[in-house]
Amino acid sequence: MKSLMIVCDGLGDRLTEGRTPLEAAKTPNMDFMAKEGICGIMDTVGTGIRPGSDTSHLSLFGYDPFQVYTGRGPFEARGAGLDLEKGDVAFRANFASMKDGLIFDRRAGRDESGLDELAKELEGLEFDGVGVFFKRCKGHRAVIVFRGKDLSCAVSETDTDEVGLAPNKSVPLDGDPRSKRTADVLNKFTEKAAQILGNSAVNRKRVTEGKLPANIVLARGAGMEPDIQSFEERYGIKAACVSATSLIMGVCKAVGMDVIEVPEANGHVDSNIGKKAEAAIKALEKYDFVFLHIKGTDEASHDGRFDSKKEMIERIDREVIGPIIKGVDLDNTTIVLTADHSTPLRLRQHSADPVPLVILGDVRTDDVMNFSERSCVKGGLLRICGRSLMGIILDLGGKSKLFGA
Amino acid sequence: MKSLMIVCDGLGDRLTEGRTPLEAAKTPNMDFMAKEGICGIMDTVGTGIRPGSDTSHLSLFGYDPFQVYTGRGPFEARGAGLDLEKGDVAFRANFASMKDGLIFDRRAGRDESGLDELAKELEGLEFDGVGVFFKRCKGHRAVIVFRGKDLSCAVSETDTDEVGLAPNKSVPLDGDPRSKRTADVLNKFTEKAAQILGNSAVNRKRVTEGKLPANIVLARGAGMEPDIQSFEERYGIKAACVSATSLIMGVCKAVGMDVIEVPEANGHVDSNIGKKAEAAIKALEKYDFVFLHIKGTDEASHDGRFDSKKEMIERIDREVIGPIIKGVDLDNTTIVLTADHSTPLRLRQHSADPVPLVILGDVRTDDVMNFSERSCVKGGLLRICGRSLMGIILDLGGKSKLFGA
Repeated sequence: MKSLMIVCDGLGDRLTEGRTPLEAAKTPNMDFMAKEGICGIMDTVGTGIRPGSDTSHLSLFGYDPFQVYTGRGPFEARGAGLDLEKGDVAFRANFASMKDGLIFDRRAGRDESGLDELAKELEGLEFDGVGVFFKRCKGHRAVIVFRGKDLSCAVSETDTDEVGLAPNKSVPLDGDPRSKRTADVLNKFTEKAAQILGNSAVNRKRVTEGKLPANIVLARGAGMEPDIQSFEERYGIKAACVSATSLIMGVCKAVGMDVIEVPEANGHVDSNIGKKAEAAIKALEKYDFVFLHIKGTDEASHDGRFDSKKEMIERIDREVIGPIIKGVDLDNTTIVLTADHSTPLRLRQHSADPVPLVILGDVRTDDVMNFSERSCVKGGLLRICGRSLMGIILDLGGKSKLFGA
Repeated sequence: MKSLMIVCDGLGDRLTEGRTPLEAAKTPNMDFMAKEGICGIMDTVGTGIRPGSDTSHLSLFGYDPFQVYTGRGPFEARGAGLDLEKGDVAFRANFASMKDGLIFDRRAGRDESGLDELAKELEGLEFDGVGVFFKRCKGHRAVIVFRGKDLSCAVSETDTDEVGLAPNKSVPLDGDPRSKRTADVLNKFTEKAAQILGNSAVNRKRVTEGKLPANIVLARGAGMEPDIQSFEERYGIKAACVSATSLIMGVCKAVGMDVIEVPEANGHVDSNIGKKAEAAIKALEKYDFVFLHIKGTDEASHDGRFDSKKEMIERIDREVIGPIIKGVDLDNTTIVLTADHSTPLRLRQHSADPVPLVILGDVRTDDVMNFSERSCVKGGLLRICGRSLMGIILDLGGKSKLFGA
């Protein structure tokens, strides 16, 4: 038995003129799953807890985010292709523009020219015996990884969030000497980076061309690489992920999944999600467990656009769920369709509202005839916690371990 | 967004001749909430756990009573107006009557004359470096607070529960030297108090007048002041409580709520609950979160009177819920109606039966058309734990914190 988990990011919603986007959307294929499968609602991290995308995915993969999550940095760093080791501390970072000691653009004008070269100039730094890895991501974004003894992620960020201010000095957030040490290294790195970038020919060229200089690096989202078992160690299965979102790829890498790249996918509402579905179907030939992540629903939610979210859901139904139902051996595959959290259009941010869930496979069916937030309340799974989902999936596939005798 | 939580103490029940008091009562306003809101059932402390009013309220406010609750004393002491400090140990106490070393009335004949003066005579005592605060409450009741180093609440009570016995010597309930120390102080206080009260002119007067002497203090319900964050620290909101029950006021004070006094309210079935509703509506102008507690339903339950409970519920519907629905800005307020526990008439005590719950606000509605223990089972919240409720309320109001990124 194989398993396919499909997560539509931010799918869940509240009522707009009496219905949710998922209720308003025409979703014959999702409804087929609801009719033939078992439904329920799910608190991905916990009832009443508003989850991030990182904590919710850890939970959906069966890990307790309250135990293993310290910050977004390590997942972004893994998503950007860095290999992390236990004890590493990672940050998200921005190239920004500074003049006379004050930040005047937190994104260096969103101008990418020369950023690859500038990133290279920041490679190979070391402070107090701590090696610093710097890697550019999309746009003005980057990640920083500290590797060395006695580090901590309990340090404040250097990012100011506002312009017109000097970069923050990082300070320890607790009394642990490791936090002091890490904050010191971050401050030394920030200063040294400003010096290198300020003297770089790349920035002189940018300024000559009328562009903003990318002359400082601002760090946030400190987190420590979690010490967690991989899927293979924990569940004894080989797993792969199909996602175009670096944070999610990072979480998948952290739990030991292989990441399958789909060049046509971009993580936006206009992504070629059909290609992702193809890649997921194909991956099921080789892997026991395939995770397919689609971001567009969340993007539309953060933009507060009902029609865009509804259309994205209809595209997922047509271009992802339809082909998967047709292309997958339903007798030998458990298919799960759900979300990592709700992102109500009115809030334009994540909420604690539970998400709908359907499982197609060797399940006890129920009376639910269509897939939505409110119809799934009446499903046979009732209300479960996200951290239980992996156990259910493995169990349906005959792959869970007996507890007891 | 503001939030109003209405708790009808002991509202939940089992079946009497096929229906609960809530089912038998005419409650058009509660039913309006059910129709327009989302319903569910709730285990306030945990499934199968029979909650006290103190533990259930801690849980409803989002605190884990298994972590923070050690006994009723500190909440009664706060409810009586004493300010407690972390590490204080508090007891509930009775003035009682003793003759020849044996208790012959545990409530000093329920005669209050001179008790204020007697309480004053017990002020300012100190034993082994432990300061003792004594404060009279309603009737024959009082509270005792110990303040000093190295105290513990693991001590047995001096109250005998029966007449004809000598007051119990308090003994430590574990091997911790602090428990021994605290029991010693309690015994010394009990002895000294008996001596002071026995020699008091007030008691000579009582006896002359044919009243029982209030010549000993019996202590029970030892608890340690919990080290908990206030609502403001924990949730970033300003909260107020409207209650006429000192234990509940004490819990509210312990979590940092302002207590709004309603002189017309008395905590009984004949309380002026309309005035409490008025006070709660008014408080919403100033506070983010208002908690409204109504005790009469529990009183009727402990008395085992079906009609009294049903009438109390109908009064709440008419005098509290009706005015609140009319008087509150429903577009900008989340209103929660529930109970702290069930108190089935046949048992005349608390039970572990879940309580009904309805939330009116920016919610996913359901098919429930009336508010009762059995109709709410079919609601969109399904079955939740009381400790999740605050998260849900804050989330609906856009005030919950994101866990993760």
